[in-house]
Amino acid sequence: MIERLCIIGVGLIGGSLARALREAGFCKQVVGNGRNPAHLQQAVELGVIDRFDTDPARAVAGADMVLVAVPLGAMESVFSSIRGHLAENAVLTDAGSAKVSVIEAVQRAFGKVPGFFVPGHPIAGTEQAGVSASFADLYRDRRVILTPAETTETEAIARVHAMWEAAGAQVTEMTAVHHDAVLAATSHLPHVLAYTLVDSLARLSDRDEVFEYAAGGFRDFTRIASSDPVMWRDICLANGAAIELMIDRFSKDLQVLKGAVRAHDGDKLLEIFTSAKQARDRFIEK
Amino acid sequence: MIERLCIIGVGLIGGSLARALREAGFCKQVVGNGRNPAHLQQAVELGVIDRFDTDPARAVAGADMVLVAVPLGAMESVFSSIRGHLAENAVLTDAGSAKVSVIEAVQRAFGKVPGFFVPGHPIAGTEQAGVSASFADLYRDRRVILTPAETTETEAIARVHAMWEAAGAQVTEMTAVHHDAVLAATSHLPHVLAYTLVDSLARLSDRDEVFEYAAGGFRDFTRIASSDPVMWRDICLANGAAIELMIDRFSKDLQVLKGAVRAHDGDKLLEIFTSAKQARDRFIEK
Repeated sequence: MIERLCIIGVGLIGGSLARALREAGFCKQVVGNGRNPAHLQQAVELGVIDRFDTDPARAVAGADMVLVAVPLGAMESVFSSIRGHLAENAVLTDAGSAKVSVIEAVQRAFGKVPGFFVPGHPIAGTEQAGVSASFADLYRDRRVILTPAETTETEAIARVHAMWEAAGAQVTEMTAVHHDAVLAATSHLPHVLAYTLVDSLARLSDRDEVFEYAAGGFRDFTRIASSDPVMWRDICLANGAAIELMIDRFSKDLQVLKGAVRAHDGDKLLEIFTSAKQARDRFIEK
Repeated sequence: MIERLCIIGVGLIGGSLARALREAGFCKQVVGNGRNPAHLQQAVELGVIDRFDTDPARAVAGADMVLVAVPLGAMESVFSSIRGHLAENAVLTDAGSAKVSVIEAVQRAFGKVPGFFVPGHPIAGTEQAGVSASFADLYRDRRVILTPAETTETEAIARVHAMWEAAGAQVTEMTAVHHDAVLAATSHLPHVLAYTLVDSLARLSDRDEVFEYAAGGFRDFTRIASSDPVMWRDICLANGAAIELMIDRFSKDLQVLKGAVRAHDGDKLLEIFTSAKQARDRFIEK
């Protein structure tokens, strides 16, 4: 049970958690913080938060749980601005899509990784952004990965764990390094590919016609290219090494496929496509 | 109005056309042909076709419209087997996803490109295959591209045009070469990327865990990797040159993006992602 939850960055992710915890009766009061008072006022009107303060230091005062849900590039300045202003019993967590870089940002801001900080990543979202897109069921049956540092206190982990479970999520733990490798493969690489494809096609001379003849498959394939560019710039900067590795791996495999196309090697093409279809169908069955 | 429609290859594409034309009252009788009598019997039971004949030469007898909807690799043998058996007033068309190769197959089978042959491509489909997945609305408001050769008769084009319009589609015309370039960009390349990504991940040592943490974005991005591997092998073989060109273009753009990741060039990343998001959002608005 949370007495006062402070959400720094009241968008899709932060707003949906607030909605879920209110619905579950897991949270008495929600205070919002962000840079844009109009957005925060909207969040109040939507019933997502009770009140807001545009000063992060004042916003976190008296909160026993603080979630930082801002783009990765804004994490360090948020941590710096709340340092020394957290309540004594406060637990601090985040929702960043890359974890090593957040832990490093905390370390720089606090001079160490405090025991009350629990790095976290809810694997949920849509290509929509902003509090108006938030909804209480966003985390229902979704995964949340916690990546505690060596210094993280067991009780702090337990409290963040309980919070996400109350929002309907399945919570697991792994190291930050492992998290970043797994997410580079399943999320960061696909986004990079979708953005690159759409940008590539948008720069074709006959681009209007090209898009005109795109069908449903293209729509689904490129949905993630409608995601927030700032968020994804920050993810690419924060998890660059793991993403580079996956781009290299993918590029190598794409060259193999291209070689099969060039060599008219139907057996090889069928092998690749069949293996992919089987893996994808297995994934969907789960 | 079609007196007798013969569909060679009664799957998602052929079956859905038959259903649509029956619903529209545009077709009196439908005869099916294929290699598997059990599938054809199922098509009869589903009410998609009236009867079937597993011999293509007998199946096309007396039909005033013949649609060949088989994988690209099977086109030539179908054309060869129906040569000399078509009714005098018959129009022949196809539903292949690449057009130059189909015209070449017709030329080899008939010794020339007959005036009654109208190359066509309905840009519709799902990742499901087979007559059981067919439905009458598949072509509703979808594009059908006809790519007549110089020898194609105007009246034959008009009859195929009318057929697809009766099925609810919007029909346009372009050259076969242009069609193959446009489709390589909007359809063939995305499929190649989705197959390659899933195959790439499926060969990671921690693949089970990787798929476990994949979310909704991954599901949509890879949906087309559940498509029929034989169909896509044939498309890659049939439209290889255009696909290679698009793979090269994409690979170059992916290397530019990787360079920006490596150089921590946030401005460049933001520029690419913003351009892609804008193009994709414009595409969706249409």
